[in-house]
Amino acid sequence: MLVVMKSDADRETVQSVCNAIKSMGLNPNPIPGKLRTAIGITGNIGPVDPSCLTALPGVVEVIRVTRPFKLVNREMKPDDTVIQINGVTIGGPDIVVIAGPCSVESREQTLSLAEQLKPLGANILRGGAFKPRTSPYAFQGLGEEGLQILAEAHERNNLPVISEALSTGDVPLVEKYVDIIQIGARNMQNYALLRKAGMSKRPVMLKRGIAATLEEFLLAAEYIMAEGNPNVILCERGVRTFADYSRFTLDLSIVPEIKRLSHLPILVDPSHAAGKRDLVIPLARAAIAAGADGVMVEVHENPSQAKSDGAQSLTVDMFAKLMEEIRIITPAVRRETARV
Amino acid sequence: MLVVMKSDADRETVQSVCNAIKSMGLNPNPIPGKLRTAIGITGNIGPVDPSCLTALPGVVEVIRVTRPFKLVNREMKPDDTVIQINGVTIGGPDIVVIAGPCSVESREQTLSLAEQLKPLGANILRGGAFKPRTSPYAFQGLGEEGLQILAEAHERNNLPVISEALSTGDVPLVEKYVDIIQIGARNMQNYALLRKAGMSKRPVMLKRGIAATLEEFLLAAEYIMAEGNPNVILCERGVRTFADYSRFTLDLSIVPEIKRLSHLPILVDPSHAAGKRDLVIPLARAAIAAGADGVMVEVHENPSQAKSDGAQSLTVDMFAKLMEEIRIITPAVRRETARV
Amino acid sequence: MLVVMKSDADRETVQSVCNAIKSMGLNPNPIPGKLRTAIGITGNIGPVDPSCLTALPGVVEVIRVTRPFKLVNREMKPDDTVIQINGVTIGGPDIVVIAGPCSVESREQTLSLAEQLKPLGANILRGGAFKPRTSPYAFQGLGEEGLQILAEAHERNNLPVISEALSTGDVPLVEKYVDIIQIGARNMQNYALLRKAGMSKRPVMLKRGIAATLEEFLLAAEYIMAEGNPNVILCERGVRTFADYSRFTLDLSIVPEIKRLSHLPILVDPSHAAGKRDLVIPLARAAIAAGADGVMVEVHENPSQAKSDGAQSLTVDMFAKLMEEIRIITPAVRRETARV
Amino acid sequence: MLVVMKSDADRETVQSVCNAIKSMGLNPNPIPGKLRTAIGITGNIGPVDPSCLTALPGVVEVIRVTRPFKLVNREMKPDDTVIQINGVTIGGPDIVVIAGPCSVESREQTLSLAEQLKPLGANILRGGAFKPRTSPYAFQGLGEEGLQILAEAHERNNLPVISEALSTGDVPLVEKYVDIIQIGARNMQNYALLRKAGMSKRPVMLKRGIAATLEEFLLAAEYIMAEGNPNVILCERGVRTFADYSRFTLDLSIVPEIKRLSHLPILVDPSHAAGKRDLVIPLARAAIAAGADGVMVEVHENPSQAKSDGAQSLTVDMFAKLMEEIRIITPAVRRETARV
Repeated sequence: MLVVMKSDADRETVQSVCNAIKSMGLNPNPIPGKLRTAIGITGNIGPVDPSCLTALPGVVEVIRVTRPFKLVNREMKPDDTVIQINGVTIGGPDIVVIAGPCSVESREQTLSLAEQLKPLGANILRGGAFKPRTSPYAFQGLGEEGLQILAEAHERNNLPVISEALSTGDVPLVEKYVDIIQIGARNMQNYALLRKAGMSKRPVMLKRGIAATLEEFLLAAEYIMAEGNPNVILCERGVRTFADYSRFTLDLSIVPEIKRLSHLPILVDPSHAAGKRDLVIPLARAAIAAGADGVMVEVHENPSQAKSDGAQSLTVDMFAKLMEEIRIITPAVRRETARV
Repeated sequence: MLVVMKSDADRETVQSVCNAIKSMGLNPNPIPGKLRTAIGITGNIGPVDPSCLTALPGVVEVIRVTRPFKLVNREMKPDDTVIQINGVTIGGPDIVVIAGPCSVESREQTLSLAEQLKPLGANILRGGAFKPRTSPYAFQGLGEEGLQILAEAHERNNLPVISEALSTGDVPLVEKYVDIIQIGARNMQNYALLRKAGMSKRPVMLKRGIAATLEEFLLAAEYIMAEGNPNVILCERGVRTFADYSRFTLDLSIVPEIKRLSHLPILVDPSHAAGKRDLVIPLARAAIAAGADGVMVEVHENPSQAKSDGAQSLTVDMFAKLMEEIRIITPAVRRETARV
Repeated sequence: MLVVMKSDADRETVQSVCNAIKSMGLNPNPIPGKLRTAIGITGNIGPVDPSCLTALPGVVEVIRVTRPFKLVNREMKPDDTVIQINGVTIGGPDIVVIAGPCSVESREQTLSLAEQLKPLGANILRGGAFKPRTSPYAFQGLGEEGLQILAEAHERNNLPVISEALSTGDVPLVEKYVDIIQIGARNMQNYALLRKAGMSKRPVMLKRGIAATLEEFLLAAEYIMAEGNPNVILCERGVRTFADYSRFTLDLSIVPEIKRLSHLPILVDPSHAAGKRDLVIPLARAAIAAGADGVMVEVHENPSQAKSDGAQSLTVDMFAKLMEEIRIITPAVRRETARV
Repeated sequence: MLVVMKSDADRETVQSVCNAIKSMGLNPNPIPGKLRTAIGITGNIGPVDPSCLTALPGVVEVIRVTRPFKLVNREMKPDDTVIQINGVTIGGPDIVVIAGPCSVESREQTLSLAEQLKPLGANILRGGAFKPRTSPYAFQGLGEEGLQILAEAHERNNLPVISEALSTGDVPLVEKYVDIIQIGARNMQNYALLRKAGMSKRPVMLKRGIAATLEEFLLAAEYIMAEGNPNVILCERGVRTFADYSRFTLDLSIVPEIKRLSHLPILVDPSHAAGKRDLVIPLARAAIAAGADGVMVEVHENPSQAKSDGAQSLTVDMFAKLMEEIRIITPAVRRETARV
C-alpha cells in the first residue's frame, strides 16, 4: 500500500498519517520527493483496507500494491493445476473440448448428439438441465430428468458431462449425476453457491461474470478453494461492452494474464460471447491460439429447432470442421488435441 | 418482430421464411422495399424467440419489437406503484431518504446513528447484516444479531429498516426483522433468490446489476412480481465502465427511462457508485434532480473506523447538509421532502 | 512512481532495478516488506515513462503516482478559472446556459430562435456551421454563411455565440465570427486542432471524447493551454457504454472530480448524451445539481423538421420550463442563475 | 425503417404518422398486430433520418433497417478488395505481417531493425514519424527526417513502409515517402483528414477508434472511399472497456463480422491493445486464427530504451518466435504466410 500525500502537505500532516498507519499495527515508510511525499506501508500480510486512510487530511490517494487473492495465486503455487476427470485431463498438455446442446431437451436429442460428438473429438459433453433465463417466462430446463439423461449419455459413450447448478439447492442433484459442476456468469458472485460448490468433491467450472475484473474473477475462485475444493476451472465467456454485433465481447487478453497470475486452468466459451454461429468458429480458433486450455461450444443437430440459444449453436458438421482446425493450431501453442 | 432479408434474396427465399413463420403459429407480413424485403411478424402475444429465424437462408437480421416484460410494464398498469411501509411512502409525492451504516457493526453504533439520522430527515434506516464481500477473507457481517439490532433501532425511533438477503436461506430471517428486503447488485440475476423474495410479504428493493441493461433489470423485477409480490422498488447504483475516478459510473439516464417504461418506483444509491464521499453529495443531489423517488446513502459516525466502505460513508454533518440541499431541489421536480 | 518487485526477487535483482533507476537520473527508495520489496522513485519533476522499468527482471508492476498534467492542475493554480465573454461569466457564481439549434439551418430559424431564447434566460447561443457527421452523406452544415448568421444573431440580441471548428482550416473563420470556439468529442485528441485553438485569442470549449479518461481529457486541455490560451471550458457530453436507452451515458461523477483536480470550468451537454428529448430536462437538472458551471442544450422551434438531431432538441416551451426548474435548483449548489 | 406505435395508438394517430412518412416522399406500410401497429417504411434508397418520426405523437420507437454505408458494403461489391503494394498483397491468400518500432528514433535503429525483420518474415516496416501523444510534453517524433529514414529502409531492404499522418498538413509529406498512410485511432472521425487521405493515391490503413461501433468504423472508411480512394485497409487495435490488465480490450469478434459486411481487408494490431509484451504474442496468434488478413506488431532491438511504447514492443527474438507460430496457424484459416 502506498499513501500519496498532497503537494502542500506539511510535516505534521505527514506525521499524523504515519501515526494512523502505526495505530493499525503497520509500518509507515515516508518517501519525500521533489513535489510531494508518499508513504509506503509494510508489515501487512494480506491487503489493507484503504478506506480509513483516504479519509485523513492531506491524503490524495491510496494505491494498493498487494493482490488480495491467495490460494489461486501462482506466487503461492507455481505449478499448473491439472485436473483429472474420468480419463480427461484439464490444464495439462492436451487441449480439452467441451461440446453439446445449450439445454438438454430430450433423451433422444442428447444421446444422439453425444454419439456423434465423441468420435469427432469432444472430450466432455455439456447440456443445461437448470437454465438461467433472463425472462421468467422462458424455458427453464428439464431439471433432474435432464441430469439423468446426461448421466446416461456419459455411460453409453464414456464421455464425462458438465451441467450448471443455479442455486445451492441444485448442487446435491448436479453433483450426483455429473462430473463437473458449472457455475454461470450470473452467479459468479453468488457467494452461498460458491461456498456450496467449494464443499463438493466434484471439480467446478466457474464462468466469468459479464463485468467482472480479473481480480473479482480470481476472488470468486478463491471462495470455492477456501472451502477445500482445489479443482476449479475458470472460463472466459465474454464481457459486456458497447460493441453490438456480438452478444458479448470475448476478452482473450485475460487468458495469458490468468496463466501468469494463477495456476488454475482457463477455458473459453465462444458460443455465449458470439451469440451467432458464424462468429463461434473464428473465436474458438482464436481462443486456442491465445493459449486457452480448451473451449466449450454449443452444438445442436438442428439449431433452428433448439429450445434455447439456437442462433449460436453449431451444427454437427460445423463442429467437425472446427475440430480439424483446432488440430492444426494446437502445435503453435505447444499443445496437443486429444487423439480420437 | 421484423425479419430483414438480404438484398439479393429471391421470391422463393422470402416465401420459405414466411412459411417458417407460419409454422410457428404467427403471421408473416412481407414489406417489399427498393433494396430488400422485410417481413413483419404479427399474431404473437409475448416476444418471439428469434433464434430459429436468424438461422434461415436469406435472413440478414431479426429485430425484436415487443418488450419481453409484462407485470412491470407501464403499458399494462399506467398508474405509479406506491408502496406504504409503516408510515413511509415510496413512489408517492414525497422523496424518500434511506440512510445508515454500510454494515451493522455494533448495537451502540447503530442505535446512536439512528437517533441522529431520524431528526435530520432520514425516512428509513439501512444497515448490512449479511455482507456480500468480493474477498472471502473480508468482514462478512453480524448475521442475525445485526438484524436484531436493526429491529431495535426501528422500534426506538419509529424508523423502518432495510437489510440485504444474500441467499434464499437468509430470506426468512431478514423478513422477520426488517421492513424491506434488499437484493444486491451481485444477485440481480440470482433467480432462486428473486423467486424467494417474490414469495415474501415484504417489499423488495432490487439493485441493478453492474452491467445490467434496462431490460434485464426490469425482467429481474418481473421474476419477483411473477411470484405474487407487487411491491418492488428498483435502485440504480452505478454501472461498470472504463471511468476510474468513481467506483462505478452512476447512470442517471435510467431514472426517467424507467419512469416511462415501468410503474415501479426507482431510487438511487450514490454511495456505492461514487466509492468516495466527496462525490456522494453532488450525485445524491443530481439523483433527486433527475427525478428519482429517493436516495440511499451510507452514513457513519466515524468513517475512518468503519469495518466496510468507510471511504464512501458520509459523516452525520455531511448528511445534514445533504438533506438541506435536497429540500431546496425537490420543488424543481414537483416533489416534497418529508417534513421532519 | 512505485516499482513493485516479485515476492521471490532476491537482493541483487532489487539492486539492479535500483541501478536502472539511478541511470535515469532518479533516486530509488527501496521499501522492504514482509512479502516483497517495493521501490519508490523520487527526484522526478514530471511523470516518468514506466516502460523501461516494467521490462526489467523481477518487476511485477510499475505504479504511477504523479499526475502528468500541469497547467490545468489545481495544485498549480488553486483558484477557479473564470472566463469573461462579452458580459457573460463562465466559472463564476452564475450558472451559464447555452442554447440553440444543433445546426444553423437558415437565417430566419436562427434569428427567430435567438430572440425567443434570450428573454427565457439563455446566456449564449449555440449553432453548428461545420457539422461533424458520422456519414459522409449527411447534411454537413452551412459553413461560413452559418457563422455570419450567428454573428448577426449575436449583434441583434447581445447574445454571445459558440460554434464548432472541425479542422485547423476552420479555426480562422470560426474565431472571426464567434465568441467561443467549440472542439467536439470526435476531435478531443486531434492535436493539430487543439494546438491551433491554443493559439487563438478566443476561449475554447473542449468536449470530452466518448471514451476519454479524466486524465486524457485534462491532457487535451493541457495541449490548448500549452500554446498560451488559458481560457478553456471543459464539457462532459456522455461516454459510450453498454446502456442502450440513451445515446451515451452521461457521466456526472466527472463534474465534482474535475472541480477537485482542475481549476477549469466544466459544463454539461445533456442533449448529445440523451439522444432523445424526454431525457434532456431531467439530465440538465441533474447536471446543475451535481455542481456543473452550466449546461448546453439543443432547442429547435420545430424539432420534427430539424436537419440534424431533431429527436434530442427541446421545443422552446420545454426550454422555458427547464429554465424555471434550474432557477429552483441553483441555490442548492450555492450558485445563481443569471437574472433575465 | 420500422416505426413502432404505442399499444393504445388509435387509427387517426397511426394515419397521421403515415401522412408524415408520405410527406417525406416515402411509403408507409402499416402492419397491425395484436398488441400494436408497426409501420414499415419503403421507397428510400439510403437510410432515413429517424428524428422527425420519433417526435410524433403515438410513436414508441423508430428502428433502422438499412445500413448507412455503401461503398464499403459487401452487398455492393461481393469480391474481396485485394491491395497490391510493391509486391506485397493485402487481403489476398497471404497473411501480411507489419513490424517495426513504435517511433523512428534514429537512422541506425531503423535500418538495423529493418534488416533483421525482413528475413524473419516481415512484409512491411512500420515506424512513427509524427506521433500522437496523450501528453503535449511527450516525445512527438522526428517528423520528415523520420520519413526519410523509413524510405531509405524501404530501398535497402525492398520492404514497403507505413507511417501515420496526424493531420491534413502531414499527408503530402507522408505520401511522398511511404507506401501506406496510417490514420490512427484518435483520428478515426477526423473528417478533414479522412477526406485528405481519400484524395491520395496511396492505400490508407484506418485504425478503429477506441469506442467506435462497427458502423462508425465502416462509415469512416466510407469517407475515404467517397473521395475516390478504393484502397482502404481496416485495423482493429482494441477498444476501451473496464478490463484493466490490458491497455485496451482486443475485439476479435469484429474480424469475421467485418469480413461478412465489407469487402475491405482487416488487420489486427495486438501491440497497442495489449500494452505489455507478454500479451502480444498470444493475441497476435489469436488474430490470425480469427481470420484477420494480417497483424501489425511493434518490435524494438532494446525495448527498455525505446522512446515510446517500450513496454509493449517485442524483442527481435520474440518476433522470430511469433513468425514460426503464425506459420503453423495459417493453414487452419486456409491462408498462407508469405515465404521468406
